[in-house]
Amino acid sequence: MHLIKKPAESLTTMTELVLPNDTNGLNNLMGGRLMYWMDIVSAIAAQKHSNRLVVTASVDNITFAEPIGLGNVLTLRAHVTRAFSTSMEVYIEAWAEDIPNGRKVSTNKAFFTFVALDKEGKPTQVPEVSPETTEEKALFDSALRRRQLRLILAGRMKPNDAAELKAIFDQAK
Amino acid sequence: MHLIKKPAESLTTMTELVLPNDTNGLNNLMGGRLMYWMDIVSAIAAQKHSNRLVVTASVDNITFAEPIGLGNVLTLRAHVTRAFSTSMEVYIEAWAEDIPNGRKVSTNKAFFTFVALDKEGKPTQVPEVSPETTEEKALFDSALRRRQLRLILAGRMKPNDAAELKAIFDQAK
Amino acid sequence: MHLIKKPAESLTTMTELVLPNDTNGLNNLMGGRLMYWMDIVSAIAAQKHSNRLVVTASVDNITFAEPIGLGNVLTLRAHVTRAFSTSMEVYIEAWAEDIPNGRKVSTNKAFFTFVALDKEGKPTQVPEVSPETTEEKALFDSALRRRQLRLILAGRMKPNDAAELKAIFDQAK
Amino acid sequence: MHLIKKPAESLTTMTELVLPNDTNGLNNLMGGRLMYWMDIVSAIAAQKHSNRLVVTASVDNITFAEPIGLGNVLTLRAHVTRAFSTSMEVYIEAWAEDIPNGRKVSTNKAFFTFVALDKEGKPTQVPEVSPETTEEKALFDSALRRRQLRLILAGRMKPNDAAELKAIFDQAK
Amino acid sequence: MHLIKKPAESLTTMTELVLPNDTNGLNNLMGGRLMYWMDIVSAIAAQKHSNRLVVTASVDNITFAEPIGLGNVLTLRAHVTRAFSTSMEVYIEAWAEDIPNGRKVSTNKAFFTFVALDKEGKPTQVPEVSPETTEEKALFDSALRRRQLRLILAGRMKPNDAAELKAIFDQAK
Amino acid sequence: MHLIKKPAESLTTMTELVLPNDTNGLNNLMGGRLMYWMDIVSAIAAQKHSNRLVVTASVDNITFAEPIGLGNVLTLRAHVTRAFSTSMEVYIEAWAEDIPNGRKVSTNKAFFTFVALDKEGKPTQVPEVSPETTEEKALFDSALRRRQLRLILAGRMKPNDAAELKAIFDQAK
Repeated sequence: MHLIKKPAESLTTMTELVLPNDTNGLNNLMGGRLMYWMDIVSAIAAQKHSNRLVVTASVDNITFAEPIGLGNVLTLRAHVTRAFSTSMEVYIEAWAEDIPNGRKVSTNKAFFTFVALDKEGKPTQVPEVSPETTEEKALFDSALRRRQLRLILAGRMKPNDAAELKAIFDQAK
Repeated sequence: MHLIKKPAESLTTMTELVLPNDTNGLNNLMGGRLMYWMDIVSAIAAQKHSNRLVVTASVDNITFAEPIGLGNVLTLRAHVTRAFSTSMEVYIEAWAEDIPNGRKVSTNKAFFTFVALDKEGKPTQVPEVSPETTEEKALFDSALRRRQLRLILAGRMKPNDAAELKAIFDQAK
Repeated sequence: MHLIKKPAESLTTMTELVLPNDTNGLNNLMGGRLMYWMDIVSAIAAQKHSNRLVVTASVDNITFAEPIGLGNVLTLRAHVTRAFSTSMEVYIEAWAEDIPNGRKVSTNKAFFTFVALDKEGKPTQVPEVSPETTEEKALFDSALRRRQLRLILAGRMKPNDAAELKAIFDQAK
Repeated sequence: MHLIKKPAESLTTMTELVLPNDTNGLNNLMGGRLMYWMDIVSAIAAQKHSNRLVVTASVDNITFAEPIGLGNVLTLRAHVTRAFSTSMEVYIEAWAEDIPNGRKVSTNKAFFTFVALDKEGKPTQVPEVSPETTEEKALFDSALRRRQLRLILAGRMKPNDAAELKAIFDQAK
Repeated sequence: MHLIKKPAESLTTMTELVLPNDTNGLNNLMGGRLMYWMDIVSAIAAQKHSNRLVVTASVDNITFAEPIGLGNVLTLRAHVTRAFSTSMEVYIEAWAEDIPNGRKVSTNKAFFTFVALDKEGKPTQVPEVSPETTEEKALFDSALRRRQLRLILAGRMKPNDAAELKAIFDQAK
Repeated sequence: MHLIKKPAESLTTMTELVLPNDTNGLNNLMGGRLMYWMDIVSAIAAQKHSNRLVVTASVDNITFAEPIGLGNVLTLRAHVTRAFSTSMEVYIEAWAEDIPNGRKVSTNKAFFTFVALDKEGKPTQVPEVSPETTEEKALFDSALRRRQLRLILAGRMKPNDAAELKAIFDQAK
């Protein structure tokens, strides 16, 4: 097993066509279907990083700003940003294209966290992440802050102990 | 249109059987399929509150703690907690049961936010929420804090302006 | 195992959104999809009553009176009405709502019968049913008559032996 | 439009492979999936007889006697047995084959009733049925009795008026 | 095991209703969904001929000439044309009907090849084919030429060795 | 509209997880499901090249050499190789990975042809293709030969007129 992997090694691209059953009464993609695809693309990225079966541990807050219409082509790109012992954070970007009308919009950014499991289904160590590009390094650094927020929201860390996150509020004073 | 509605008026219960295609390589329900069902049950609750078509605006951080096995029965209960002009926060609880083995576990709690749309697809006013039970009142009160966190995470509010949320960190000092 | 259970202990509520692939050329829910959902909700009710895996043994005559449109919300409620050694009769009611237009109609009532199976797949004894409400008692009583009709239609009972059912025709003279 | 059609003109054969998502915890086909397929094959037969869009009006009592396993091939054959002004009764037979093991069993017989609709969605006259074989004639004759039972069960006919059906009980004396 | 089987013994008929999720932005059946159905109907025909589990080995060139609309009824008929030791060629014909408008068109003809596998997953001998009708005999004869083209296209035969196929070009001189 | 486009401009990558319902009795991906995905990824590539809605016109011979197991990750890459007035040939490569076991195999290469349609559904001119890499140039050149074979197989060209294709057999002498 590689002890350190680059984000590029887990990069996964998924393309989906928005079909009638994916849409609501307004002919737009339902948020739940989009999250279903995000979960699959990011699980595959986490598999590639860890060479293990993985399970979804958490999903960070997602905002849905742009409607995505029936017949649009949705592209999702995912890669691991940082590893924390047995868990991995994955960053997902989604774009929607209405190709015949030449419209392409960035629709969502999301963070999913996965835990790698061994053959007995127990959490198991994963490789470290070695970021290369400026964006990868920024995602690597901010992963710590997102992790603190996740732990607080899950009731597993006290706000007082979240040094990285707390700094945001202190700066604001 | 009722100007004020009770959470009980939007209460929606959904029951799903975990089928093979919903599961991963460990025969457990995939997180993405669970979020797909959460989106549908909470959209229906938001429809019931607003009597409008609704679109998913955001999903708060979700933690997946318990594996949910193939053949389990999943029960999801959703109701609107609070309205903010044209948007509604919906609270969802999920339980999984392995009925033949008599195991029932609470698996997830989640908050989805929806926007109500009129026939032209424009955001439109929804009824206020009048909480009745102690739990409904607690959810109504904390909705403000969750909303601030959502706005900050979406880059639409400065941490300094999130009075409700900031108090958590200040208390911690 | 409880030797006697109340109908309320098996009560199961299912909510489904009518999606494009569930509809026919008139944009109405296909009868077959509705029966698919009825089978699942009633199988879950029978599982809850028996704490066993169950298989569908028969479906009574179902009438489809009301069209159910695309985008409607379908609510199905099921509970066990009476047990017969290793089999259970389940009563299902279905309502359809066109929420934005404020229309809610009762669409169907149906009876499904299930057999409980042990781990070897052999039929196994289930708890008795103890009805509580007036409606539950009426369903418990009439279950005998429906069972006789089922057995006659399946060629497993002679009309002459169906005392309960025969009374209907004799009264009519 | 032909005023009279033979059952052979509406004969429809459907073959389905039982896939994982069609099965329950015992790896057998769920009754609801089978009824979904029965509804489609019989709706197509009713379309062929009437050259109209059709909607399911009712389903007669169905018994599920034989388990149908994962990977089995299911064959459904349907044809119209008799027309009643704007409605048609369709008879469906189903066989299951476990081809590698050379097992083939008759699994179900069922009757579905459909109403033909014109372009405005109003019930419209359909051709008469002219049965040819001995079996077709028997199905044509017994259709009257089944129709009376359907009307009684739907609360639209009094048992006393069901001459055909009543005879069964009177013979039994 | 029969050493020789007739094409009629593997004949399989499949009927499918074109539903919204099967269609593209023009409301016509997607080619990929049609090939999915062709694969299933021809795999069942190959199972019937060989009484074995089978896997798809190759698909010959398919032309899509006629659009098939939403709500159309698609009929596929498949039978084995010839066996080559452990493999079988299956011929599939497809018709589409717009029943309410009385239009029926032949849409596709295709050849799929399957390999029969024993319980260890190893290729295993299948019965010979004994064609009966004129069409079956023509398909049996031309199967050799199609097989040569398949082997050349898969890089497993040199054009020079494809006597049957080469004759077509030589005749053309 | 660009009059000339590079293959890179239509490049589309799709990643799919092989789920239970995609597999046959041997737990391997069914050929029909793979062709369904190939059709979607190549239709999207053809859309990107033409900025039009497209319909599948033909599929060239496909060989299935490698079994693809349940839980494998399938990657499909497609781009337009050459345009012929209103039609485009798309080349698709597929790889399957069993990530936890570190196995990755090239499984298929395929050519699909699409026709671009304008808003009235009539075939319409598409941009030329300007190949850049050595592989793209080879695919561009050989596209002519594949097109001749397609036309002969569809009965729309005489073997004698297929100069490019005939050369293969003449060389062989």
